[in-house]
Amino acid sequence: MAIKTNPGNFFEDFRLGREIVHAVPRTVTAGDVALHIGLTGSRFALNSSDTFAQAIGYGTAPIDDILVFHIVFGRTVADISLNAVANLGYAQCRFGAPVHVGDTLTARSIVIGLKENSSGETGIVYVRSVGRNQRDEVVLDYVRWVMVRKRDRAKPAPDPHVPDLAGVVAPADFHLPADLRMQNYDRALAGSPHGWEDYRKGERIDHVDGMTLEESDHMTATRLYQNNAKVHFNQHAESKGRFGRRLIYGGHIISLARALSFNGLANAFRVLAINGGRHANPCFAGDTVYAWSEVLETIALPGRSDLGALRLRTIATKDRLCADFPGPDAAGKYPAEVVLDLDYTILLPRGTP
Amino acid sequence: MAIKTNPGNFFEDFRLGREIVHAVPRTVTAGDVALHIGLTGSRFALNSSDTFAQAIGYGTAPIDDILVFHIVFGRTVADISLNAVANLGYAQCRFGAPVHVGDTLTARSIVIGLKENSSGETGIVYVRSVGRNQRDEVVLDYVRWVMVRKRDRAKPAPDPHVPDLAGVVAPADFHLPADLRMQNYDRALAGSPHGWEDYRKGERIDHVDGMTLEESDHMTATRLYQNNAKVHFNQHAESKGRFGRRLIYGGHIISLARALSFNGLANAFRVLAINGGRHANPCFAGDTVYAWSEVLETIALPGRSDLGALRLRTIATKDRLCADFPGPDAAGKYPAEVVLDLDYTILLPRGTP
Amino acid sequence: MAIKTNPGNFFEDFRLGREIVHAVPRTVTAGDVALHIGLTGSRFALNSSDTFAQAIGYGTAPIDDILVFHIVFGRTVADISLNAVANLGYAQCRFGAPVHVGDTLTARSIVIGLKENSSGETGIVYVRSVGRNQRDEVVLDYVRWVMVRKRDRAKPAPDPHVPDLAGVVAPADFHLPADLRMQNYDRALAGSPHGWEDYRKGERIDHVDGMTLEESDHMTATRLYQNNAKVHFNQHAESKGRFGRRLIYGGHIISLARALSFNGLANAFRVLAINGGRHANPCFAGDTVYAWSEVLETIALPGRSDLGALRLRTIATKDRLCADFPGPDAAGKYPAEVVLDLDYTILLPRGTP
Repeated sequence: MAIKTNPGNFFEDFRLGREIVHAVPRTVTAGDVALHIGLTGSRFALNSSDTFAQAIGYGTAPIDDILVFHIVFGRTVADISLNAVANLGYAQCRFGAPVHVGDTLTARSIVIGLKENSSGETGIVYVRSVGRNQRDEVVLDYVRWVMVRKRDRAKPAPDPHVPDLAGVVAPADFHLPADLRMQNYDRALAGSPHGWEDYRKGERIDHVDGMTLEESDHMTATRLYQNNAKVHFNQHAESKGRFGRRLIYGGHIISLARALSFNGLANAFRVLAINGGRHANPCFAGDTVYAWSEVLETIALPGRSDLGALRLRTIATKDRLCADFPGPDAAGKYPAEVVLDLDYTILLPRGTP
Repeated sequence: MAIKTNPGNFFEDFRLGREIVHAVPRTVTAGDVALHIGLTGSRFALNSSDTFAQAIGYGTAPIDDILVFHIVFGRTVADISLNAVANLGYAQCRFGAPVHVGDTLTARSIVIGLKENSSGETGIVYVRSVGRNQRDEVVLDYVRWVMVRKRDRAKPAPDPHVPDLAGVVAPADFHLPADLRMQNYDRALAGSPHGWEDYRKGERIDHVDGMTLEESDHMTATRLYQNNAKVHFNQHAESKGRFGRRLIYGGHIISLARALSFNGLANAFRVLAINGGRHANPCFAGDTVYAWSEVLETIALPGRSDLGALRLRTIATKDRLCADFPGPDAAGKYPAEVVLDLDYTILLPRGTP
Repeated sequence: MAIKTNPGNFFEDFRLGREIVHAVPRTVTAGDVALHIGLTGSRFALNSSDTFAQAIGYGTAPIDDILVFHIVFGRTVADISLNAVANLGYAQCRFGAPVHVGDTLTARSIVIGLKENSSGETGIVYVRSVGRNQRDEVVLDYVRWVMVRKRDRAKPAPDPHVPDLAGVVAPADFHLPADLRMQNYDRALAGSPHGWEDYRKGERIDHVDGMTLEESDHMTATRLYQNNAKVHFNQHAESKGRFGRRLIYGGHIISLARALSFNGLANAFRVLAINGGRHANPCFAGDTVYAWSEVLETIALPGRSDLGALRLRTIATKDRLCADFPGPDAAGKYPAEVVLDLDYTILLPRGTP
């Protein structure tokens, strides 16, 4: 009689090139949108308003890109990271076709890298995960790598294979909306007069506001994504664990940083790519999250006088104001208050408003 | 001038055969579904995905059966259990027509039993409650009995009448979907390869994961069902009460046990019946809920080679792992860590996947 | 290079007659409705049920009026009260066209009064805010006044102008639904037999039930409204603030008082107006809110035998039962347990049920 419980995959269960069909297709609904707003306070006009979206050419308000990320990511957890010791990184994350209420998202992953650690107890698994809608259009595509436990130390190590990963998503790979009517983009309604031209490379923006984390909030967000990683939900187990507390899903911090960034980047109406990210320190209930951003690059888009991109670095902190832009020290070491260092690319309106 | 506040019904207000029309018809929405997922972490594919549901013949994803139970149950509280001292039991609970987003649910109850307690201060009321949709189709039908306070001790006791209740819902009474295309049921997308034939009578499944209860979560869930039983919401009053704390709605524990059971029973795509249930001990915020299940019976369904049923016993605990399947002792006494003992029947796909 | 972060408006930024277009149009969804029910426990049948609403002539269940208020109010915060020291009052608040799922709400405000305080550090700003739907119909219209900080003490005071404000919204200004079929209004389904004629001027109703406030709940509600006033969300900052704790959005208390008032006013199916309101004391997580109401006036509506209005005063308390109707003392001073004193007008069915 087969064991019915899913033990998750261990390092030796991953094979280079193996494709994994993740379970639980998810229809995205207005309920998901409301909860995402309720749990993060996000205020981007495009995701909040059908009329705003329709004015510039969308059928209805598209789903917040970060919410799409979480839903796709949530599909993958049971197969990829249930036995993960650590989430090590993301790369080459591109947002594709916009997602609307009623769309159903599924996810698949391909193992693109494997490398056993010298301890023989864990290994690093690289996967490329792809989220698609019910029309089989790609809505999200990203690489992540996690450190996964071996079931059996004695199992021989696979040939190591570490994929070549781009440090940044190239403009040619952006999924740009083809036929927006950006002349109808209303900056007053979006909440800021500042378009693409107003930002400068090197510019730093303190997003000012802080948001305190609660157990209910992060658990509800993470459950909403059907992300079932154990460490977020079980105080009985975690009280005996490394931190003595439930660890907050790093993606929830990304959501908060994005929501906080409205104050300074209200016209960043789409996320084009996540180039890389690091959860520099863990977050727990009671921490207050702040964020600041630096413009790493201003990216003119060929043939598009209506749109421009910014490559940003957004750093989130806990219990630490960001007026002085805290970050890693010269040696790259993060102070304990820095919780997120995210490199991503956003889309803004360009041209006279 | 009439008192405007609803004092609820006391024992002497119930008459055998009396029908009670419960207030507040409720249209079930995508918001309710999202909140139920967000508050429980439920991952059943049928309830999460329109495309999954449509593949096997539903118009859209049906509402989680346990959510339907809570919404119907919520209608009844103001009339049946506002003055309840204890919820004593459920029986003969059958799920009927599937509920979809947009359906409006109403509930009525008939008093089918009355028995005053020897103390003369309380009595037991048995009601059969029926939930219907806007087409008057039965969506849920169950018996419950509660111990209710008398308003006036001096009132004479009614003739005692205790209904005959079946210990288990018979297969002939199951509401089986007639025209599903189970050949399209995709077990990989549902999250488990295990269908009806894979389970054996007596098999025990530890659902492994734990979920910690928070005040916000259980209150939000219970308010969502418009269940206004006082003990769940009022710390000011409960601080002087029996437990010193808000008592968590027992139905929320059923929701969590069902959600946790995904890990081992992912293909249990419909609940057919609840045969009986016991809230063995109270739950409070801070408790972590675990669950395990035993297959009490494997039920072949006449004329259906595509579907099979399992009668299950799911036991939920608090702050207690379930690897050794904790339950009542030989004398039937529950240890303090056992919080739920639920006897119910579920539907699974049958036949080669 | 312009500062990208919105510093909010200071007293000297407001000019008499200036119109402010508030950002972030918001499409109201079934998700918002579910969250509002989940966070407040509201049970009004009209807002819960499409079939109930359709029976009396609505296309679908209209959105709870208080939820409409919060969404419109939420639009205004970033411009009006980000630098507010205190919310001083509301007046002349009229609810207009009913709002339905799918409607998109926008808001504008006009500065109708200015008066610098003698300290020279703050001033009082009066605004008339108007919420409209996508068809430009007014859904809400109210005056509020706030005490706002000056950026620069040295700036000369404007000519003082204090608007004439009515103490009560006149019946002629009510937005009454023209073509309801009130003969189909089912009081049993609404939850109370009591219609307009059953209430008497001076009648007092203890709403009995209590609801305990949680940080997650009030923050999620307030974030849902995209109300970004800082004091509600940031424990890190507030721990050094006046109260040492996050202050709960006063509107959340209004929501709870309205939800609690169902027990005694279940047929108050629409809010017509808010005549005035006072947040007498602050609320914090852990407080339990109770409420009682007094009928200030019974208002017959010219030409309408099917509908009547009641002007109510609803007082909410914290950690204090309302059986003895606590309120301000003879000198108008509120005891510490009174948190809200709301003067508003509601609509009820009239005539033989």
